[in-house]
Amino acid sequence: MTEQNQKQPSHEQIQQVKTFLLGLQDSICAGLQAEDGGAAFVEDSWDREEGGGGRSRVLTKGKVFEQAGVNFSHVFGHQLPASATAKRPELEGRDFQAMGVSLVIHPHNPYIPTSHANVRFFIAEKAGEDPIWWFGGGFDLTPFYPFKEDAISWHKTAKDACDPFGDEVYANYKKWCDEYFYLKHRDETRGVGGLFFDDLNEPGFDKSFAFMQSVGEHFLKAYIPIVKKRKAIEYGERERNFQLYRRGRYVEFNLVYDRGTLFGLQSGGRTESILMSMPPVVHWQYDWSPEESSPEALLYTDYLHPRDWLAA
Amino acid sequence: MTEQNQKQPSHEQIQQVKTFLLGLQDSICAGLQAEDGGAAFVEDSWDREEGGGGRSRVLTKGKVFEQAGVNFSHVFGHQLPASATAKRPELEGRDFQAMGVSLVIHPHNPYIPTSHANVRFFIAEKAGEDPIWWFGGGFDLTPFYPFKEDAISWHKTAKDACDPFGDEVYANYKKWCDEYFYLKHRDETRGVGGLFFDDLNEPGFDKSFAFMQSVGEHFLKAYIPIVKKRKAIEYGERERNFQLYRRGRYVEFNLVYDRGTLFGLQSGGRTESILMSMPPVVHWQYDWSPEESSPEALLYTDYLHPRDWLAA
Repeated sequence: MTEQNQKQPSHEQIQQVKTFLLGLQDSICAGLQAEDGGAAFVEDSWDREEGGGGRSRVLTKGKVFEQAGVNFSHVFGHQLPASATAKRPELEGRDFQAMGVSLVIHPHNPYIPTSHANVRFFIAEKAGEDPIWWFGGGFDLTPFYPFKEDAISWHKTAKDACDPFGDEVYANYKKWCDEYFYLKHRDETRGVGGLFFDDLNEPGFDKSFAFMQSVGEHFLKAYIPIVKKRKAIEYGERERNFQLYRRGRYVEFNLVYDRGTLFGLQSGGRTESILMSMPPVVHWQYDWSPEESSPEALLYTDYLHPRDWLAA
Repeated sequence: MTEQNQKQPSHEQIQQVKTFLLGLQDSICAGLQAEDGGAAFVEDSWDREEGGGGRSRVLTKGKVFEQAGVNFSHVFGHQLPASATAKRPELEGRDFQAMGVSLVIHPHNPYIPTSHANVRFFIAEKAGEDPIWWFGGGFDLTPFYPFKEDAISWHKTAKDACDPFGDEVYANYKKWCDEYFYLKHRDETRGVGGLFFDDLNEPGFDKSFAFMQSVGEHFLKAYIPIVKKRKAIEYGERERNFQLYRRGRYVEFNLVYDRGTLFGLQSGGRTESILMSMPPVVHWQYDWSPEESSPEALLYTDYLHPRDWLAA
């Protein structure tokens, strides 16, 4: 193996990851803003006392998107928080840096799914020992009134992102996504899934970085066609109410289970940027369930459990 | 010491706790319903596969209360979940039963505070060893547009509940409440606090039970006078929006920090009853903060940090 599989990424390589992430944030914001055609992203740059900072961008009250938040952050810390070390005790007590782009999109129209993507790079250092580094990321789709063809095209694009990296990659990370975005207390997945990967370093730095790039670059390719197809569908109070109710599940997932959210809050991250994932308007209703055979019931029966969307 | 301080509560005593809790649920629902004067509580009884069950009651779309949920539950389990044992390793691996009444009230009018109360009894058993039992509970108040006199009367009633049990009781449990209902990621208390106690068994069963009764019985005495005073105040969109925004903090607290919520979700509790605490309508808004010297700013500056409300 050559330098490509070296254990220790150079400063230059770390800088390349950062440059990629900043560019990804730019291109995703540009693509979403063009699709919205109404509002523009507003940027907030912020510094963190402990080191590092970020560039938060949010578009609100657009024509298509009620809220879209796309964050870049690069933070340094002295102790990986519990959410990051619970399953990897070898990381305890290490200094770390974490950088990533994270986004959540809440459209107005209940026929457009909510969507999330994240790509990230971690490096945990300790004097006298090799650094431990890894990539993670993925994207997932949360429809309210689902279309089978959208779930299929979403997963086809996810597979396209993975296929150059090996035959099993899509299947493995699709499965991981189904397992990760799962609300145990509801026995529901968050939506139709997509990709989720973490702790990626075994293929070496270059290949791992290339895979993370591929996932980041496939997000808009997967999402924009669905937005275009669904944004003109008419809807009324019934569909809006169901969307607001289902957004409660998004809140429940992010605050109870999501590793990124808990990592951010526990590591003293910038609260407003972390909680940009929260929907602008949410409803809860005690013990509500959809009428049998209604369009709302279809979501529960056919879409909120793992399915092989690319089966012949 | 007599039987009153025995280590092991008898079956009869456990039954007395249950009888008290069911009666407390009745009297609190009756008091709230009378104050509302519009809607009635609807009851759901439910059983839990693993043993036990509950009686959930919810009033929605009342004249005064947008939603009020008052739950009784009595659950059995084979393993105390992580949220209950993290700080008490001696409880690990014990069978347990837990019973309690828990309530959260979300009024329409932003001038009426949101309010929460809970009283509970736990007993954790292991063959060949003495059971470990304890009481816990408390109540706390979350104003949107606060009145100093309401915070004072709330705390006076809290002190009345405590004073028969010792000089330091109010001060200790008031402090515990401030520490418990604290959103670290916001550096805000949930509201003006009240009482919080847990792990109470040192005074013996009878005194501990009597204290829990006193707390439960003082809740309506503390809350109803505030509702009466504030329910006729006129409000508009501005006040409503601020209330909906601040309700986001309630969601954040309950899903990220609250021991009862996490215990319920982790122990396979009835999700709909546990999440009855979620407000019916909630807003999040990126990086919002109140205008300086506005009524909304007053909440942050004067009410969301621990204060001695009964100082002369």
